[in-house]
Amino acid sequence: MDIGLVGLGRMGGGIARHWLRNGHRVVGYDLTPSIVASLVDDGLEAADDLTDLVSRLDGRRVIWTMLPAGQPTREVTAFFEDALAAGDVLIDGGNTNYHETVARAERCAAREVRFLDVGTSSGLLGRDLGYCLMVGGDRDLALEFLPLLEQIAPDGGCRYVGPSGSGHYVKMVHNGIEYGLLEAYAEGFEVLRASDFDLDLAEIAELWRHNSLVTSRLLDLLSTKLSADPELSKFGDYVEDLGTGRWTVLEAIARDVPAPAITAALLTRIRSRQDKSFGGQVLSALREEFGGHVVTRPGGPIA
Amino acid sequence: MDIGLVGLGRMGGGIARHWLRNGHRVVGYDLTPSIVASLVDDGLEAADDLTDLVSRLDGRRVIWTMLPAGQPTREVTAFFEDALAAGDVLIDGGNTNYHETVARAERCAAREVRFLDVGTSSGLLGRDLGYCLMVGGDRDLALEFLPLLEQIAPDGGCRYVGPSGSGHYVKMVHNGIEYGLLEAYAEGFEVLRASDFDLDLAEIAELWRHNSLVTSRLLDLLSTKLSADPELSKFGDYVEDLGTGRWTVLEAIARDVPAPAITAALLTRIRSRQDKSFGGQVLSALREEFGGHVVTRPGGPIA
Amino acid sequence: MDIGLVGLGRMGGGIARHWLRNGHRVVGYDLTPSIVASLVDDGLEAADDLTDLVSRLDGRRVIWTMLPAGQPTREVTAFFEDALAAGDVLIDGGNTNYHETVARAERCAAREVRFLDVGTSSGLLGRDLGYCLMVGGDRDLALEFLPLLEQIAPDGGCRYVGPSGSGHYVKMVHNGIEYGLLEAYAEGFEVLRASDFDLDLAEIAELWRHNSLVTSRLLDLLSTKLSADPELSKFGDYVEDLGTGRWTVLEAIARDVPAPAITAALLTRIRSRQDKSFGGQVLSALREEFGGHVVTRPGGPIA
Amino acid sequence: MDIGLVGLGRMGGGIARHWLRNGHRVVGYDLTPSIVASLVDDGLEAADDLTDLVSRLDGRRVIWTMLPAGQPTREVTAFFEDALAAGDVLIDGGNTNYHETVARAERCAAREVRFLDVGTSSGLLGRDLGYCLMVGGDRDLALEFLPLLEQIAPDGGCRYVGPSGSGHYVKMVHNGIEYGLLEAYAEGFEVLRASDFDLDLAEIAELWRHNSLVTSRLLDLLSTKLSADPELSKFGDYVEDLGTGRWTVLEAIARDVPAPAITAALLTRIRSRQDKSFGGQVLSALREEFGGHVVTRPGGPIA
Repeated sequence: MDIGLVGLGRMGGGIARHWLRNGHRVVGYDLTPSIVASLVDDGLEAADDLTDLVSRLDGRRVIWTMLPAGQPTREVTAFFEDALAAGDVLIDGGNTNYHETVARAERCAAREVRFLDVGTSSGLLGRDLGYCLMVGGDRDLALEFLPLLEQIAPDGGCRYVGPSGSGHYVKMVHNGIEYGLLEAYAEGFEVLRASDFDLDLAEIAELWRHNSLVTSRLLDLLSTKLSADPELSKFGDYVEDLGTGRWTVLEAIARDVPAPAITAALLTRIRSRQDKSFGGQVLSALREEFGGHVVTRPGGPIA
Repeated sequence: MDIGLVGLGRMGGGIARHWLRNGHRVVGYDLTPSIVASLVDDGLEAADDLTDLVSRLDGRRVIWTMLPAGQPTREVTAFFEDALAAGDVLIDGGNTNYHETVARAERCAAREVRFLDVGTSSGLLGRDLGYCLMVGGDRDLALEFLPLLEQIAPDGGCRYVGPSGSGHYVKMVHNGIEYGLLEAYAEGFEVLRASDFDLDLAEIAELWRHNSLVTSRLLDLLSTKLSADPELSKFGDYVEDLGTGRWTVLEAIARDVPAPAITAALLTRIRSRQDKSFGGQVLSALREEFGGHVVTRPGGPIA
Repeated sequence: MDIGLVGLGRMGGGIARHWLRNGHRVVGYDLTPSIVASLVDDGLEAADDLTDLVSRLDGRRVIWTMLPAGQPTREVTAFFEDALAAGDVLIDGGNTNYHETVARAERCAAREVRFLDVGTSSGLLGRDLGYCLMVGGDRDLALEFLPLLEQIAPDGGCRYVGPSGSGHYVKMVHNGIEYGLLEAYAEGFEVLRASDFDLDLAEIAELWRHNSLVTSRLLDLLSTKLSADPELSKFGDYVEDLGTGRWTVLEAIARDVPAPAITAALLTRIRSRQDKSFGGQVLSALREEFGGHVVTRPGGPIA
Repeated sequence: MDIGLVGLGRMGGGIARHWLRNGHRVVGYDLTPSIVASLVDDGLEAADDLTDLVSRLDGRRVIWTMLPAGQPTREVTAFFEDALAAGDVLIDGGNTNYHETVARAERCAAREVRFLDVGTSSGLLGRDLGYCLMVGGDRDLALEFLPLLEQIAPDGGCRYVGPSGSGHYVKMVHNGIEYGLLEAYAEGFEVLRASDFDLDLAEIAELWRHNSLVTSRLLDLLSTKLSADPELSKFGDYVEDLGTGRWTVLEAIARDVPAPAITAALLTRIRSRQDKSFGGQVLSALREEFGGHVVTRPGGPIA
């Protein structure tokens, strides 16, 4: 099949290679020429721009966008909503907010452009393993495309989950859970490190990978990182959140689901990005006022 | 080797079978005779009581206790601290509080009874897979016993982690992490269930087991449960906590480690066991007083 | 001055009486005729409907809406946005979401209807004390109206806080703080009640009102409630949230402010309204699967 | 009455002055001579050491200790447990852990030294206002001393709350609630500050002091601080916790009371004292591994 692929970074590039290996013709575009160039040896056909990409595809056109959520996805899909013709297929594989996806699907339906939203896990690992795909949209269309999708998501890693928006909804929750899982490991290893026992964190991460109840893919990765550097000294404690985790928290609140652990994971990340907490300053000011407490950091003046 | 094993329940029984299959002589005792009887066909030699158990072991005696933390472990290990002789070996495989373990190890050392604390994961799964063992105590003793322990914890599932108490410390944190992981899945699946998309939770759990970043042993189990009953209708929402999870929270606080997600997991369990929250009543009373809000549950009187 | 007042319930009725006592002509409307009737003896002039209310006002018309946030406020203010003329004044004293207020103010500006958003604390107490008013909108208009507003908000309880939307923003955060304060008392009194000391909660609430650091208006109210019924036995533990508290949480997240205590207060309320937690059922199911734990509530079957 | 007073700092000094003004003879001791000296003009009689202090008191000796919880209180009360005679009275006015108080009361009872535990709020404010005293111990003894205690805790600020330990228990919870209240204000003002409305925080704090539902003593103090410096620029965001707040959290957990907001307040303080969060580093390391995310702080290298 001919496939147009926009966004050839860590995720898009991996997907391109899977499809090229499976014998498909992949016409690709990315804002960064060097990224495109790096895939040409693998067989990718480079498009000059989005218009060129559309014109290079024959018959029913199939476009997969693999872009950061928000403005990049919005701009590129808006182009295709307009440029594609009735019967063509647009697939958004990114981490788009599901509300936006539902609206996009309606616009596509109005123009008879067919649309699928596909939640795509798992980052760099997918280059070797293949991906886990959560497919939302019209059932018949989805079922028609499952064989193609399974080529990049083998071994049971691809399913139709429901109508338009549900693919991105399921991926959103997947990532919310991931926030919680990551935070649980992070907290636990910080407790291990704080003990008086002088524990070898890398050995413990590795040990737990075998037969224990906390075995997971994330633990496999943590074991790798801790083996390489038990102090993780090259890493800061500043942690971004990129949409899906906070949307899970907002969705939980909107639907009256208490989700305190995933929420704690989000708030921890938000706190990690503060240089100085005004709330903390309020506490310090009040404690001085009522108790005469003037707290300086150990060994230094008030920060 | 001859091994005395006290506590033959879900964990102890599984361990007994592993050692019996490996050709060891296992003399066992449990308060419930039917549990002992069920293991005799597998080759277990039943002791009448703890004294009888000690007397049936030849040479250097090796005792493994696999009992609920707290009073049961305390009583039985107290017996052995006294009944064993210099050079004998006592191993506590339970979820004992590590402070208690440190004190026990000191008492044993004073009497030259040798002591190991072994954190033991993973419950019922261990019967087939074998266990994950976190071994604390004297390094030489631990290294001597590793070959024996590896017979019940194959494939890398057994390591020496540090001095007395550290085996139980590492297991405590393991379980604290487990609390956080479980809570993350629980919250995420509640958000999935709350969506308007009428999602098939069993299918999603199964899908995520393949290639995704949230793949884990716990997800495997959840997939099994949801496949059998997508509504989990036979299960209540009342959740016990059995020591290690709350100890992780207390240890984190004691060591100035903020662990909000694991703490949230604990508080959620505590809340689940309340029939009526007095704090909630305080809120209701105050809201009536300042706002005239009189809230009844939908369709019914004030609960 | 002539004032039109729509919504004559607990808040609106109190405001009406303050203005009537101050010699103003108040023309009022409420969906519930008996509420209107109860104010006629105090001097209120009853309007038949919104159109009638507008027609009864002479000169520059001044309308205060005191309605539940959301649909009621939306519908009634939409009427006035249309029915009022250039130079007339519309004041929304309710707990409207500030984003909505900003949009409303822009629509009013386009038609030269003048608009103020006034956050109004404190419920039933305001009937006697007067209110605390947080005034947003055009500065000149606000300053012109301050003397009128101070008549219902004496003793420093009225200030201009900023441009359109800021009055409701400040009230939103006021209520978010209130959620946190209420939750702190609720939790503390639950801990007092859980102690072995058989403490007299009403006495303690009263004691703390004198010279302590936790003295507050909310504690005054709690002391009243606990004196009347130390067990608060007529109150359920089911607690609504009505917008402002959850908006504070959402705003905090949107602005990258970690607000874990106010968030905890919101999630506690959400949890209080669940009859059965699916998350809790997930935990129970998993614990059965990996540990054989089958938990029933004490004295009964699985809930 | 003759009163011995040990610990003459911010709290003890204020108490001394109240009693001196009420005509009592106060013999005082403090480790810091200049603190003692500053009270001599007010009529304080300075003791050279604890032995001297005891010897200067006539008849039934009454000793009030007002010392930091933990070692200082432990050492000084241990001296008096021994040095006092049957019938003498020892009063611990500090923030002692109530478990320790219960044990102390038992030791005192064994020697017939009479003992009261008195929770004492509110810091610096008490110098002018007088204090709020929560009195635990033998009921008859407490009732006998109430008139004396009311001289430093006027206007209803003094009550007997229950048997030995309960005074400190109630004070512990008082402080736990205070943690929650402080955190609620801190978070709320941080949300105010984060808004686009360029709000005047000092004006808002002052406004809310009048007629609103969030009026409190703590808000009075915050208004003072924000008026003096709206940016609180001299204050760091590093916040200590001094025992009672964390004990409230531990007590809540021990008694199966979920207290998420007070717990959040404690964890926020703990987090504020971390220079670098190892948990945050774990998250960063994992995110690099699975997503290729390498996060640097804006404008700088990895912290």
